[in-house]
Amino acid sequence: MTYDDVLSEIVVKTPARIVLFVIDGVGGLPMETGGPTELEAADTPHLDALAQRSICGMMDPLAPGITPGSGPAHLALFGYDPFRKSVGRGVLAALGIGFDLHPSDVAVRINFATINEKGVITDRRAGRIPTAKNEQLCTLLQLLVLPEVELFVRSVREHRAVAIFRGEGLSGRVTDSDPQQSGLAPHDVAPVVGEEQNPAAQKMARTANNFVREARRILSDHAPANFILLRGFDQYTPMPSMRERYKLDCAAIAVYPMYRGVARLAGMEILPTGETVVDEVRTLVRHFETFTFFFVHVKKTDAAGEDGDFKRKVNAIEEVDRILPEVLSAEPDVLAITGDHSTPALLKAHSWHPVPFLLHSRYCRPDPAKRFSESECVRRGGLGRFPASQVMPLVLAHALKLKKYGA
Amino acid sequence: MTYDDVLSEIVVKTPARIVLFVIDGVGGLPMETGGPTELEAADTPHLDALAQRSICGMMDPLAPGITPGSGPAHLALFGYDPFRKSVGRGVLAALGIGFDLHPSDVAVRINFATINEKGVITDRRAGRIPTAKNEQLCTLLQLLVLPEVELFVRSVREHRAVAIFRGEGLSGRVTDSDPQQSGLAPHDVAPVVGEEQNPAAQKMARTANNFVREARRILSDHAPANFILLRGFDQYTPMPSMRERYKLDCAAIAVYPMYRGVARLAGMEILPTGETVVDEVRTLVRHFETFTFFFVHVKKTDAAGEDGDFKRKVNAIEEVDRILPEVLSAEPDVLAITGDHSTPALLKAHSWHPVPFLLHSRYCRPDPAKRFSESECVRRGGLGRFPASQVMPLVLAHALKLKKYGA
Repeated sequence: MTYDDVLSEIVVKTPARIVLFVIDGVGGLPMETGGPTELEAADTPHLDALAQRSICGMMDPLAPGITPGSGPAHLALFGYDPFRKSVGRGVLAALGIGFDLHPSDVAVRINFATINEKGVITDRRAGRIPTAKNEQLCTLLQLLVLPEVELFVRSVREHRAVAIFRGEGLSGRVTDSDPQQSGLAPHDVAPVVGEEQNPAAQKMARTANNFVREARRILSDHAPANFILLRGFDQYTPMPSMRERYKLDCAAIAVYPMYRGVARLAGMEILPTGETVVDEVRTLVRHFETFTFFFVHVKKTDAAGEDGDFKRKVNAIEEVDRILPEVLSAEPDVLAITGDHSTPALLKAHSWHPVPFLLHSRYCRPDPAKRFSESECVRRGGLGRFPASQVMPLVLAHALKLKKYGA
Repeated sequence: MTYDDVLSEIVVKTPARIVLFVIDGVGGLPMETGGPTELEAADTPHLDALAQRSICGMMDPLAPGITPGSGPAHLALFGYDPFRKSVGRGVLAALGIGFDLHPSDVAVRINFATINEKGVITDRRAGRIPTAKNEQLCTLLQLLVLPEVELFVRSVREHRAVAIFRGEGLSGRVTDSDPQQSGLAPHDVAPVVGEEQNPAAQKMARTANNFVREARRILSDHAPANFILLRGFDQYTPMPSMRERYKLDCAAIAVYPMYRGVARLAGMEILPTGETVVDEVRTLVRHFETFTFFFVHVKKTDAAGEDGDFKRKVNAIEEVDRILPEVLSAEPDVLAITGDHSTPALLKAHSWHPVPFLLHSRYCRPDPAKRFSESECVRRGGLGRFPASQVMPLVLAHALKLKKYGA
């Protein structure tokens, strides 16, 4: 038996409630040698007081040295093996907007973009067109009829949309059309290396190129959104849900579609919420009786880190700290606070650095950590250093949802 | 090659002596927030002095979050993969009393119990009958003749006994008759789910139900011990011994049959001893020249934890501390002190929490840990956090029994 098999065997359904509070990209780095990280610079009295009553540690998102995308990082937090199957952006985006994907549908992310008369991409985001314009263009694209497949085009927001292809004999193993930088011509979609002879990949590539050509024709009068770029083709394969695996009734509270998507992939119910972390926490409190597991996702920290804005990331952390008492007022049996990965403002990108982790429960063994920060979690964290794949076993155990294994 | 393969290849036989001293369930929790754990509350001058000359750490019994039974927890300490095969209570009990199990024997734990005229269990332990009465009843049951199998019935102690079934085509994959609470009728023994069509499981179920029926007839005049309950059917499969794997001559010193059983499973010789930890340590000293590996098991700490008796667990820890100088007087080359798991009085049960670990040897790299306690082993333990499966490699290495690997 594997660790996973054992967990499935010993897990029991109880009313105890677990909150997994993910502050996206919360781990950071000093901007100059000897300086504080974003967490260390932030004034976080509530997080620090909680750390003193909790057990802390440092979590590796996937494995040491690996910088994760948001998909694998969240899957690992939810207890799935992120190396087994990488889930493409298309599937995450489609699930994220609540599209009812069928098994074997192929989904892909669309960027509305600007192309010039020479066929060169001049803006990969079409000047970040307003969402209303995006919706209008998606309605136009939805009128397209493609041979042999059913097409669904759905708006996400700004320049982002998603296309879903439904039909017999399709494969998601095809390349992106998005060249990833402006000043280049778009690529043709083609089967990935090794799949050149696979008729399903050939059919998908043919269909996608057809779609791009037809879209260009339809959008020609809609500059700057006169073209589409496709990336992250993936075929949807349902995974065993967290309800099946852990006997949990799971709810996700996330503002951004991407995180709703990965939560849907894990079988969570998506709770409608507002635009701020305050809205999210109020949603949590309002639905607290209805579920036994809550995934709460805070985006602002990661966005500030990606922009290289140290101060804005500090502010976003402080905003989380201010709302923490409302989370605690719900009295979850287990509250775990961490990030899905680090996004140091210094790097302006996701990074591989381990992430501070805090677990509060009546049955945690407290440690001497006095703050929720990288240095305290490293030096005084009782959990030591551990991979994200151990988060679900830890929170389930502390909620007393795991029976004894063996006589 | 796996880690295990490498160990087998590089291990050498030397006279160096290793003592693995297991204080069952020694890890604990504070009874109230901010309070001490059992180890922290105990006055342990000898353990603390030893910790200052040793390397310490925190050991995960099986894997983070998993609460182990005693069987898997000890197998992991002895270097066996506890997830590969879970060993049933029947086999552990039979080995524990020194019964010479043959490969493919099926063994099961017996509880003498009280059943009323309506066929309802009124006491699952028959008022904890004296061991002498138990022995008399086992002699009666041994007279039973069952078709197609040879039956052995052996007394353990109080209400506990064990039955061994020997014969062609038996399987241990059958359910318990013990309903696990009084006020219910006993269950019929049946093949486990998925084994319904397995003739060996069918034969075992038929045999067991026959045995229960005949036992009830024979015991009808022996109330309160007028019935038997069966649990933990398992078929004995020998494992490679610690002598084969590690070139060690192993001895076990344990008061309780269960722990003798798991030690026998690993191929250890069981040394007769008395009832107390003082008796056990004297047994160790007396046989110190004859073996190169000693497993010493202390039960009282776990029993006190299971009863939720914080003070009694503290006392049991202090009792171990007082006898520690006698252990040291034998001058083992490596002395490792730990538990098989935590049993916090707060939880009145085994738990998943990591266990303090101490290793003393001429060749350990000391760390700044000043006490043998959870907080010191976490904060200042040089071994960090590691799984029990690494204990054997660590003690073998520190005994200089592992050659260099590779050129």
